[in-house]
Amino acid sequence: MHWSGWGDPAKARELPEQVRTLLRDLLGVREPAVPAATMESVRLAPVALPERVLAALAGIVGEAHVRTDHEARVRHTRGKSTPDLLRMRAGDGSDAPDAVVLPGSHDEVAALLRVCADERVAVVPFGGGTSVVGGLVASRAGLDGVVALDLQRLDRLVSLDTESMTATLEPGLRAPDAERLLGEHGLTLGHFPQSYEYATLGGFAAARSSGQASAGYGRFDDLVVALTVATPEGTLELGRAPRSGAGPDLRQLVLGSEGAFGVITSLRLRVRRAPAERVYEGWRFGSFQEGSAALRALAQDGPLPTVLRLSDETETMIGLARPDAIGGGDTGCLVIAGHEGASVAGRREQAAAVLERLGGVPLGPEPGTAWEHGRFSAPYLRDSLLAAGATVETLETAGFWSNLPRLYDAVRLALLGALGSPLVMCHISHVYETGASLYFTVVTAQDGDPVEQWARAKEAVNAAIVEAGGTISHHHGVGRDHRQAYAAEVGPLGVEILRAVKARLDPAGILNPGVLVP
Amino acid sequence: MHWSGWGDPAKARELPEQVRTLLRDLLGVREPAVPAATMESVRLAPVALPERVLAALAGIVGEAHVRTDHEARVRHTRGKSTPDLLRMRAGDGSDAPDAVVLPGSHDEVAALLRVCADERVAVVPFGGGTSVVGGLVASRAGLDGVVALDLQRLDRLVSLDTESMTATLEPGLRAPDAERLLGEHGLTLGHFPQSYEYATLGGFAAARSSGQASAGYGRFDDLVVALTVATPEGTLELGRAPRSGAGPDLRQLVLGSEGAFGVITSLRLRVRRAPAERVYEGWRFGSFQEGSAALRALAQDGPLPTVLRLSDETETMIGLARPDAIGGGDTGCLVIAGHEGASVAGRREQAAAVLERLGGVPLGPEPGTAWEHGRFSAPYLRDSLLAAGATVETLETAGFWSNLPRLYDAVRLALLGALGSPLVMCHISHVYETGASLYFTVVTAQDGDPVEQWARAKEAVNAAIVEAGGTISHHHGVGRDHRQAYAAEVGPLGVEILRAVKARLDPAGILNPGVLVP
Repeated sequence: MHWSGWGDPAKARELPEQVRTLLRDLLGVREPAVPAATMESVRLAPVALPERVLAALAGIVGEAHVRTDHEARVRHTRGKSTPDLLRMRAGDGSDAPDAVVLPGSHDEVAALLRVCADERVAVVPFGGGTSVVGGLVASRAGLDGVVALDLQRLDRLVSLDTESMTATLEPGLRAPDAERLLGEHGLTLGHFPQSYEYATLGGFAAARSSGQASAGYGRFDDLVVALTVATPEGTLELGRAPRSGAGPDLRQLVLGSEGAFGVITSLRLRVRRAPAERVYEGWRFGSFQEGSAALRALAQDGPLPTVLRLSDETETMIGLARPDAIGGGDTGCLVIAGHEGASVAGRREQAAAVLERLGGVPLGPEPGTAWEHGRFSAPYLRDSLLAAGATVETLETAGFWSNLPRLYDAVRLALLGALGSPLVMCHISHVYETGASLYFTVVTAQDGDPVEQWARAKEAVNAAIVEAGGTISHHHGVGRDHRQAYAAEVGPLGVEILRAVKARLDPAGILNPGVLVP
Repeated sequence: MHWSGWGDPAKARELPEQVRTLLRDLLGVREPAVPAATMESVRLAPVALPERVLAALAGIVGEAHVRTDHEARVRHTRGKSTPDLLRMRAGDGSDAPDAVVLPGSHDEVAALLRVCADERVAVVPFGGGTSVVGGLVASRAGLDGVVALDLQRLDRLVSLDTESMTATLEPGLRAPDAERLLGEHGLTLGHFPQSYEYATLGGFAAARSSGQASAGYGRFDDLVVALTVATPEGTLELGRAPRSGAGPDLRQLVLGSEGAFGVITSLRLRVRRAPAERVYEGWRFGSFQEGSAALRALAQDGPLPTVLRLSDETETMIGLARPDAIGGGDTGCLVIAGHEGASVAGRREQAAAVLERLGGVPLGPEPGTAWEHGRFSAPYLRDSLLAAGATVETLETAGFWSNLPRLYDAVRLALLGALGSPLVMCHISHVYETGASLYFTVVTAQDGDPVEQWARAKEAVNAAIVEAGGTISHHHGVGRDHRQAYAAEVGPLGVEILRAVKARLDPAGILNPGVLVP
């Protein structure tokens, strides 16, 4: 992973000339005066942890698995939001952990948490490091230091139950590695968020991830049937059945807890047979409203495709659904409908009939293949845009169908108000019977302080989402960036519940302090 | 509702001669020596609440909505488990509330909770009164009295959102009344548990109900998209979108909370178009194992029928799946597969192909129609069995597919060990990709103290379920009867979470004390 950008540096994307022209002419983007920092030049505070604590940590995981070197600390600083990247490009390492600790088992995680609680050291669970909501920045207030708890050594497929179609896996497994291990048995999780190449299973669960094929395979929280969680006060083992009528579903308290309640050390997940067939196709609708109505019909009356997305007019025109051919977009609103399974002909035909009846024009497999080919490449493009002097960031929400137009307008208005004349694109990428997600991509010319510039825009959008009745995140999570909006969403008594749970599981307040719980 | 039995007394069922013979010859059942108590003869303690408190309650809801008469107190004593009925038949009113209070709005509920917290009065939320796990018995320890909070006046369809396919309804609505109100708009909830005729929407949510058509419509907790909850510390409003990535799903903490965390005063529920077609059919399989494999195939690879049930050899032989023709059962294992929807021919044909391929013999629509006709009548039969001197009770669990045989054997062995030679029948009535429920019906001859006799059996079964790795309830809930087993299921730290949440929402400990939280 690029230390101050996204992904494999070898896959870096040059901006096509069309895009450079667009940025210059449409948005007034100018190249930044200051070049990006090198890793060596990132400014870090001295390691705040005393030798005694470092020795205690090494006593649990071994000397080789406690790192305090410059590179390890830089690579565990913050996540991959645009402000995170802008800060790293500016050489700002102020949120770096004092040390990176790599446990190799549940028992080591449990022991580390006890030592850190005793020593008052904040613990930031670290999977793929792909948070885009400030989920990896610990508050040091009242504590003596911060360690990043990197779970990469917990990377096993522990067991497989092909009768129940579940697999027990460790949290540090990156999604492609999990798919490879399961693929050897003809199985798949079917979880493909944009962070797929780097994100880990533990992170998916802790942040309630939702992948691009969620219509077919479900959200990640739908895939979790059991969990093991280490906390400073002991271990939770939850999930004895697919569903239960015995009390509140405590699994749902761990899912989305973002490391603030404990560290997930094992996951039993639903698996599916790898699909024999896979067909992705494009459709054009005259307007976002018309396209939304078609998606709603498929979500409510079926058949629901495995992948179902709708880009609004701007996103379609810019061609963001096809990052390989960006700038070469089209009129109307593009729908991508993908079908995966043992045999898809029947469902594909029925879904096509619905889309056609509701005004869709079939574009054939070409746009679908193009989308599938480029589905993980948008974040690479962001690095090139940042280098060219444009801020590009994404944000998302979800709501009930009847409330989506209000939410859509509210977010756009907030962005226009805060940023002048940015480019705002939107798509629906997750549909349910009762509602859907809205995913926005914003491009704007950087001003003198792009971090502050975006912070203002983000604050305006958060307020707009709360006011318009949407949830503050459909699948990015809360982190630090959505904490206040989340508090408004669950209300004062909801916040009290979170605080009560945290106080009981983490009385010393060392678990990802400042994240999630206001 | 019959005060000491089930349902409409006019629908009471005489035991067929076949059944009487069976009971006598197979189980040694003899008519009890003591006749059942009359309502007037039920022994109640004097009302413990001082006039001052009763006046304060009446000040909120009006004089007419605070009742302390004998009948009101008897009718709000306990629920409808077999021990509950046996105690009422014996004239034991020792768990009666001091008063029944009937609020008419959310604000009245909130005001009542504040008064009861101030006055240290336990509050038992009361919907249809159909709990079978001791969910309606408050512990008086440390408190000055008990009121039943009957929600029957909160019975409105508040609003309908046909675009999002949701309805906002009040918790005191009985299921048939909710279906009638929604039916006027061509809509349905599709929630049909055996308690359907009496149970309320609030109770379904508070106890994580699951209906007989859960394969098609989902469990009740799947239907809940938003909730309003009154607590002594304020109001919770949860649910702004179908699903969210913003933190833990706090709705899932309210669902299954059984009145111990608050009182649900409003529910926004997913609704469906009422099905135009409905076909229920029977299939015979050679064994429970073979039938289970067929249900698993439908759950994992589809198409999943709307209703899908499998009776084991004993239940099939006794004919419990057809209460109209009980005793006239059959060999093998009966499957009921029901399809509902706008048009079911395609799914029906595909499901039939799967069932046939896996060894099923089609029995046509007759057993399906018979099951549908008798689906709510089993509890009526129980009253006749109790009167005849037989104890009949049900219990249930759920687990992953690979663990079901172990669970099945463990429960049967525990019952045989505790009861000698009872009749034990079982069916699978709820299937998921990763597992299923097991629902047991037990019939045994009453000994001198049938309540104590069943308590011993129940204790043995609870221990067996915990030991065999199942959940202590798939859809009956925890109440008092499963409290210790539930504690074992979620572990000491899980219990601490529940206690922490309860302490924050209900610091005076007045909400259904003794239920759910150990």
